[in-house]
Amino acid sequence: MRNETGRVEAFSDGVFAIVITLLVLGIDTPSDISGHSLWWALGREWPHYAAYVVSFMVIGVMWVNHHFIFSHLVRVNRPLLFLNLLVLMVVSAIPWTTSVMAGQLTDPRGAQVAAILYSGWMVVYALSFTAFWWYVTQVGHLFHARVDRAGARGTRIRFGIGSVAYPATVGLAFVSAPLTLLMHGVIAAYYAANQLPIPLHAEGEDGDSESSDPPLAYFLSKTE
Amino acid sequence: MRNETGRVEAFSDGVFAIVITLLVLGIDTPSDISGHSLWWALGREWPHYAAYVVSFMVIGVMWVNHHFIFSHLVRVNRPLLFLNLLVLMVVSAIPWTTSVMAGQLTDPRGAQVAAILYSGWMVVYALSFTAFWWYVTQVGHLFHARVDRAGARGTRIRFGIGSVAYPATVGLAFVSAPLTLLMHGVIAAYYAANQLPIPLHAEGEDGDSESSDPPLAYFLSKTE
Amino acid sequence: MRNETGRVEAFSDGVFAIVITLLVLGIDTPSDISGHSLWWALGREWPHYAAYVVSFMVIGVMWVNHHFIFSHLVRVNRPLLFLNLLVLMVVSAIPWTTSVMAGQLTDPRGAQVAAILYSGWMVVYALSFTAFWWYVTQVGHLFHARVDRAGARGTRIRFGIGSVAYPATVGLAFVSAPLTLLMHGVIAAYYAANQLPIPLHAEGEDGDSESSDPPLAYFLSKTE
Amino acid sequence: MRNETGRVEAFSDGVFAIVITLLVLGIDTPSDISGHSLWWALGREWPHYAAYVVSFMVIGVMWVNHHFIFSHLVRVNRPLLFLNLLVLMVVSAIPWTTSVMAGQLTDPRGAQVAAILYSGWMVVYALSFTAFWWYVTQVGHLFHARVDRAGARGTRIRFGIGSVAYPATVGLAFVSAPLTLLMHGVIAAYYAANQLPIPLHAEGEDGDSESSDPPLAYFLSKTE
Repeated sequence: MRNETGRVEAFSDGVFAIVITLLVLGIDTPSDISGHSLWWALGREWPHYAAYVVSFMVIGVMWVNHHFIFSHLVRVNRPLLFLNLLVLMVVSAIPWTTSVMAGQLTDPRGAQVAAILYSGWMVVYALSFTAFWWYVTQVGHLFHARVDRAGARGTRIRFGIGSVAYPATVGLAFVSAPLTLLMHGVIAAYYAANQLPIPLHAEGEDGDSESSDPPLAYFLSKTE
Repeated sequence: MRNETGRVEAFSDGVFAIVITLLVLGIDTPSDISGHSLWWALGREWPHYAAYVVSFMVIGVMWVNHHFIFSHLVRVNRPLLFLNLLVLMVVSAIPWTTSVMAGQLTDPRGAQVAAILYSGWMVVYALSFTAFWWYVTQVGHLFHARVDRAGARGTRIRFGIGSVAYPATVGLAFVSAPLTLLMHGVIAAYYAANQLPIPLHAEGEDGDSESSDPPLAYFLSKTE
Repeated sequence: MRNETGRVEAFSDGVFAIVITLLVLGIDTPSDISGHSLWWALGREWPHYAAYVVSFMVIGVMWVNHHFIFSHLVRVNRPLLFLNLLVLMVVSAIPWTTSVMAGQLTDPRGAQVAAILYSGWMVVYALSFTAFWWYVTQVGHLFHARVDRAGARGTRIRFGIGSVAYPATVGLAFVSAPLTLLMHGVIAAYYAANQLPIPLHAEGEDGDSESSDPPLAYFLSKTE
Repeated sequence: MRNETGRVEAFSDGVFAIVITLLVLGIDTPSDISGHSLWWALGREWPHYAAYVVSFMVIGVMWVNHHFIFSHLVRVNRPLLFLNLLVLMVVSAIPWTTSVMAGQLTDPRGAQVAAILYSGWMVVYALSFTAFWWYVTQVGHLFHARVDRAGARGTRIRFGIGSVAYPATVGLAFVSAPLTLLMHGVIAAYYAANQLPIPLHAEGEDGDSESSDPPLAYFLSKTE
C-alpha cells in the first residue's frame, strides 16, 4: 500500500540526492597543468576535498534525520508540505556555502567570512528543521498511531539544546576556519551515532526475536 | 499496490527535484576576492539570493499543485503523458529565466527585459498547466471514482481567473523588476495557502476522527 | 507489492529525469550585455531554444517508450540490466550532442558536422534500443503473462522499419542543419502519437466500462 | 507493501542516477571552432569519450552490485545507513576523477598521475564497499530469511580476492594511462557478467517453470 507520505519523501529524497551529488561539481579539474606538477595542483585543492567530505557527511546526516522523522508520519498536510520545502530550500544552498568555504579556506581573512557564512547557514538549517519538528509535534495528528504524542512534544527542549552546537560553530569561525570545518564533521559524526529517539507506545506483537539491534522506529509505520 | 500513475509521478518528481536544486548553480562563488571584502562581494550577489528564494518557492508550489492534481488521477493515457511533458519542459527552463533575472536585476534597462522574460515565462507555464487541467477535466475518466467530474469541470473558469495574476506581473515588469520578483514570491505564498479544491462525492467510511485538518484529497486515491 | 522491475525503472527514471533537466544548462545566461540590447542577446540564442525544445521532446518520447516496454515486463535479469544501461548511456550523452548542435547551428559549415553528429547519435540510440527490444522478445520469459510472445517477436521487423527515419536524418544533415533539427522534432511528435502496440492475449475480466480510451498496456502488469 | 529498505534504495538510486548522468558534463562543447575543423575538434576530445564510456560502465556495475546486495536485505540500521553513505560519497567523486583522467590522458606525465588517481580511487571504492559487505555479513540479521548467513560470510574471502584487480590497476597506471582506462572497462565488463552469488537456503515453492534463467536472488525479497 502506498503511504500518504510517499510522494513527499520521494521528492525530498530526490532533492537530497541531487544536493549531495552536486557537491562534487565544486571540485575543480586542474586542466592547464602538465607533467608531475599535477600532484602539486591536486594537492593544492585540499580545501575542496575537506569541504566535500564534511558537507557530504552533514547532508547525509540531514537526510537520515529527515528520513527518521518522516518514518513516524502517516499523514501530510499543506503546512507540513511548505515547512518541508523550507527545509529543502536551506539544504539546497549548502553546495554554495561549501563552495565559498572551500575557495577561501587558505586565505586567512576570506576564510573567516566564509566560515561564518557556512556556520551561520547551519544555524538557519537548525531553525528551519526545528520549525518543522515543532509543527509536527504541535499538531500531533500527522503521526503514526504508535507515536507517543506527549512524549514527542517533550523532545522539543532537548532537540533545541542539541542545536546549540551550530551557533557555537559561528563563534569558532572567528578563531579558525579549518577548525570550524572540522567541527562540522565532528558534529555530523556525533549526530550520526546519537539519534534523539521519538517516544513510542509499547506494543506486543512487534517482537523481532532474531534482531539484536532495536528496530528503527520507521519500520513501524512502513511495514503494515 | 502500485498505482497506475506511479511512474509518471516518479519521473515528474525527479524533474521537479532536479530543477529546484539546479537553482543553486545560478549563485556564483566569489573566488578572486580576498580578505574582508568577501562580505562586500557576497552582499553584491543579493539579486541571486532573492531570485533563488522566489524561484524555489514558485517551483515548490508548482510541485505541490502537480502532486495535488495527480493525487486525484488513477489512470494515465498518452495525451496526458505528453501534456505532462509539456508542463515539465516549461518548468525545467525556470532556472534559466531565474539566472537571467538575477544577472540583470541591478541594471535598470536589462532588468526590465529580464523581468518581462521571467513573468512571460510564468504565463507560458500557466497556459501549459491550464491545458493539462482542461484535458483532464474534459476526458474525466482518468479521475478517481470519488472525484465529482462535473464539479471538476466547473473549476476551470475559476482556475483561469486565478491565472490572471501572471499576465499582470508582465505589466508590472515595465514598472519595476525587483517589485516583479517580489510579486512572484507573494503569488507563490498565496497559492501555497489557497488551493482551489477539486470537488468530491460525499463518502461515509472516510471519517478520520482524530484528524482536525480536513484530509488532503490525494489521500483518497492513494490509500486504498 | 513491489514489482521486480521496480528499482530498475526507478533508476532509469532518475537518469531520464536528470538528462532531460540538464538540457537547460546548455542555454547560456547573457550576463555582460546591458540595457535593451538584452532582447537582442536573448534573440541571438534561438538555436539553443530550438535545440532545447526538440531534445526535450525527443528524450520525453524515449522515456515514454522505455516506460511502455518496462510496463510489459515482470522480471529482469543481468543481460537486460546491462542492455538497459547501454540505452541509458546513449541517452545521457544527448545533452552534449544538443549543446554541440545549438552552438554550431548558425555557422554553415560547423552546423553540418553538428547535425551529422546529432542525427548519427540518434541512430546509435535506435540501435541500442533495438538491441534491448530484440533481447526482450527473444528470451520472452521476462514478459508479463498476458503478453503474446510470438506476437511481440513479430513487431521486431516493423520496429526496425520505424527506425529507418533516423538514418534518413543523417542524410538530411548534409542538406540543412535547422531542417534536420526540425525533422527530429517531427519524428518525436510522430512517435508520441503512434506507439507500436505490443500484442496481448485476450482477457475477459479487464473490461473497464467507463474508459473510452483503450487502457495502456502497462496498466496490466502493474495493477495486480 | 513498502519494504523497510525502500527509502534507502530510492536515495541511493537517486545518487547513482545523478552521478552517472553528471559524467556527460565532463565532455566539453567545442564552441569557438568553425567549419569542418569541428570534426577535428570533436576528434581531439576522444579521451573524454573513452573516459565517459568506461566510467559509465563502472558506475553502472556499481549500481547493479548495490542493487543486488540490497535485494537480499529486509532491514536497515544506523551503521548500515552510514556505511551506505560512505559508499555513495566515494561513488559521487568518480565524475571528478574521470574528468581529471580525461583532461590529462594525452599528456604523458600528467596522464600517469591522473591514472594513479583514477585507479587509487577505485581501490578506495573497493575498500568502502568491502566494509559495507563485511558489516552486513557480520551482523547477519539484516538479511532476508532465505539468505544463508554462514554462506554469505564465506563469500568475504573470495570477495576480497576479486578486489585485488583494483590495486593491480594502480600498478598499471605507471605503465600506461590509456591501458589503465581500458583495463577498468574490462574489469567492469567482467563484473557485469560474473556476479559472486549470495548463498540461499533451498526453497520449494519458488519454482518458476517457464523461466530458463535462474531468477535473480533479489526477486526473492521483493515479491512477497
